[in-house]
Amino acid sequence: MTSFNIGMYGGGTVGGGVYELIMKNSPSNNMKITKICVRDLNKPRDFQVDGSITSWTADPDSILEDDSINCIVEVMGGTGLAKRIIETALKKGKAVVTANKALLAEHWNELQKVLKANPKARLAWEAAVCGGIPIIQILQTAYQGDEISSVTGICNGTTNFMLTQMFQHGAAYDQVLKEAQGLGYAEVDPTADVEGHDVRAKIVLLSQLAYGGSIVGGVEQIPCKGISKITEDDFAYARLLKATIKLVGTARRMEGGKVSVYVTPAIVEERHALASIDGAGNAVVVESKNLGACAYTGPGAGRYPTANSVVADLYRLSASTTAAAASDDALTLDPNYAGSFYIRFPVAKKHAGIVGKIGVCAEQHGVGIRSVLKNTDKDFCVITEDCQLSQVEGLCADLAKQDFAGNDEALFMPILSG
Amino acid sequence: MTSFNIGMYGGGTVGGGVYELIMKNSPSNNMKITKICVRDLNKPRDFQVDGSITSWTADPDSILEDDSINCIVEVMGGTGLAKRIIETALKKGKAVVTANKALLAEHWNELQKVLKANPKARLAWEAAVCGGIPIIQILQTAYQGDEISSVTGICNGTTNFMLTQMFQHGAAYDQVLKEAQGLGYAEVDPTADVEGHDVRAKIVLLSQLAYGGSIVGGVEQIPCKGISKITEDDFAYARLLKATIKLVGTARRMEGGKVSVYVTPAIVEERHALASIDGAGNAVVVESKNLGACAYTGPGAGRYPTANSVVADLYRLSASTTAAAASDDALTLDPNYAGSFYIRFPVAKKHAGIVGKIGVCAEQHGVGIRSVLKNTDKDFCVITEDCQLSQVEGLCADLAKQDFAGNDEALFMPILSG
Repeated sequence: MTSFNIGMYGGGTVGGGVYELIMKNSPSNNMKITKICVRDLNKPRDFQVDGSITSWTADPDSILEDDSINCIVEVMGGTGLAKRIIETALKKGKAVVTANKALLAEHWNELQKVLKANPKARLAWEAAVCGGIPIIQILQTAYQGDEISSVTGICNGTTNFMLTQMFQHGAAYDQVLKEAQGLGYAEVDPTADVEGHDVRAKIVLLSQLAYGGSIVGGVEQIPCKGISKITEDDFAYARLLKATIKLVGTARRMEGGKVSVYVTPAIVEERHALASIDGAGNAVVVESKNLGACAYTGPGAGRYPTANSVVADLYRLSASTTAAAASDDALTLDPNYAGSFYIRFPVAKKHAGIVGKIGVCAEQHGVGIRSVLKNTDKDFCVITEDCQLSQVEGLCADLAKQDFAGNDEALFMPILSG
Repeated sequence: MTSFNIGMYGGGTVGGGVYELIMKNSPSNNMKITKICVRDLNKPRDFQVDGSITSWTADPDSILEDDSINCIVEVMGGTGLAKRIIETALKKGKAVVTANKALLAEHWNELQKVLKANPKARLAWEAAVCGGIPIIQILQTAYQGDEISSVTGICNGTTNFMLTQMFQHGAAYDQVLKEAQGLGYAEVDPTADVEGHDVRAKIVLLSQLAYGGSIVGGVEQIPCKGISKITEDDFAYARLLKATIKLVGTARRMEGGKVSVYVTPAIVEERHALASIDGAGNAVVVESKNLGACAYTGPGAGRYPTANSVVADLYRLSASTTAAAASDDALTLDPNYAGSFYIRFPVAKKHAGIVGKIGVCAEQHGVGIRSVLKNTDKDFCVITEDCQLSQVEGLCADLAKQDFAGNDEALFMPILSG
């Protein structure tokens, strides 16, 4: 058991939680937070510190250069200063715990290089993905003799809250976005959440753990679709299908060794493990050769769930001296994922023979149709047999050229069977 | 990373799975199984061993006395010989991985004493509870800075298969028991499964991990009710309530430090995380101060799920030298658990004024009634407000003395809200 003198970067929601959880069991947990670095020393904080143990600083280097500090906790976010701090701390042999998924997803390979060059360096990041769910620890330890075939997660509490409101109360997108902003769940600029960028960073991290390699090139190459185009109509159809709609990140191992990683809204049938994940909850379903499907669910964000994951990392690092460098094998991406798809296709006006034309188009693209539903005069819903993303894209492009096509784009998403 | 020369006890379903998973990655995993001890060397096995590496023996001591073997895997079951083997191996400094929940639940305190007396001894038992779900590892590492308030699990695949069949197909208990026996899910003598004894051993182990102590006295003091009295009528009522019925083990921390541990069938509302766990699946819901409710679900039994947990333990032990003795603080039990209850009460004949008399009885026992339902002429269903087990037992005893009472006993169980 290593004793930790901790320097913490960040004094916000999560930082306050970490301070409370560590200090209420100090010193019996062999840990104490001796310095907290924040940008603005004058900003009011919502937690009290014991001045006889803990001091505040605005100088990041005063922690890095303090040899009495052997562990840093980075909960300030950002990918600039945070990167310098983490790399420097690792090189100095300080244990590092971070909640920074954006930094990890963007600079994974550089961090792995630092870890490999410093075999005693230790980096833990349970809090970076899915708040309080110990999914990182689970992927690192429960599947070592197994082969994971897919990881599918609801990893963003903001959008899951919004989709739950739309499903349960028939609310419109703009209305639930305002509600989420009012509650502090969504940012003033909600792009990172609603366009799926946050989920993308997380599924990149999960896929690298699950398949033991790293994704070469930027995260921008990952197909990423958010929820901003989902309407009440989609939920009406989902209800007809005994299903709901969730924003999911998926990483699937394909035949031939490629990995398909993508972010998309999905129709999730009632009996699927992800269907009942409501509000700000998160969940990850891992499918593997030995275990079949396992689901891990819990709170996706918030002060204490996220702080709890930081603290669990601290206990683990304190108990162990294992190095944490991951495999640096490259993973080859296959963006052309497959499945049964839901397509909502807008039509301009009442028109005879639409179903026949859809059928001909689908056949030309090799897409089998399971059912065609019509709920309003302004659109059609098509459920496909298993096919590939590229086939669906081709079909939608062709449909848009037909004389009955409406002005809006078609919307499609995969169906997760219950 | 310690290299493991493994001696395995047991060559059955799980043993064969462990052999395959270890040997297919040997020697790159630094592990090999060099001896397998079985009772009957002539019995046919459903897996092939490589005779140049692995030999068979019927003599348990030939593994214990072999100094080249530094790790044993015990997957033979039983609480007699298995206990001697595990204790001797620990004393000799061999790492031990076992899947034997009955042994652990019955002899926990003795094993903890051996661990304490031998600080280098290492014992891991992920496979003992909930097959492939890494619930032991999760409880040991994800909640170190947290306070668990309850653990509720579906921990027995056989009974969950039976209850699922009864729910989905309206089948009778006797019929699904025969079906489960035909499929090899249930034993010829199904007592351990259907009367909840298997769940009892598992919830004892989970409660000791969750609350960091050990239950003093035998497992017989744990209130334990199985599923053998559940009828189609109960499922008819459950459907009216938009719920199903599950056999659950629960361990809840009470005010004042007592712990309430019990096994019972429960009405589980549709939206509850446990409602959708079907067939031979298992799930554990952990409620804690920092995380709220987290659910961990996966396969509860079977060759590869169970073997995968054994193998995950081997990887963990190989990577770490942490001792595994748990706290030996005693936990004080409170068998009088509380909740909203479902009561099905048989009546002898049509009779006026029954609801009034039920109301008077309930009032005398301080039990609030939420609703009274009547589905057939032969029984009533009562849903209570939150109350204690002892109050429900008292109410049922009083109802049995009324002139309208039928011959059968009342059946009651708690309701898990969705």
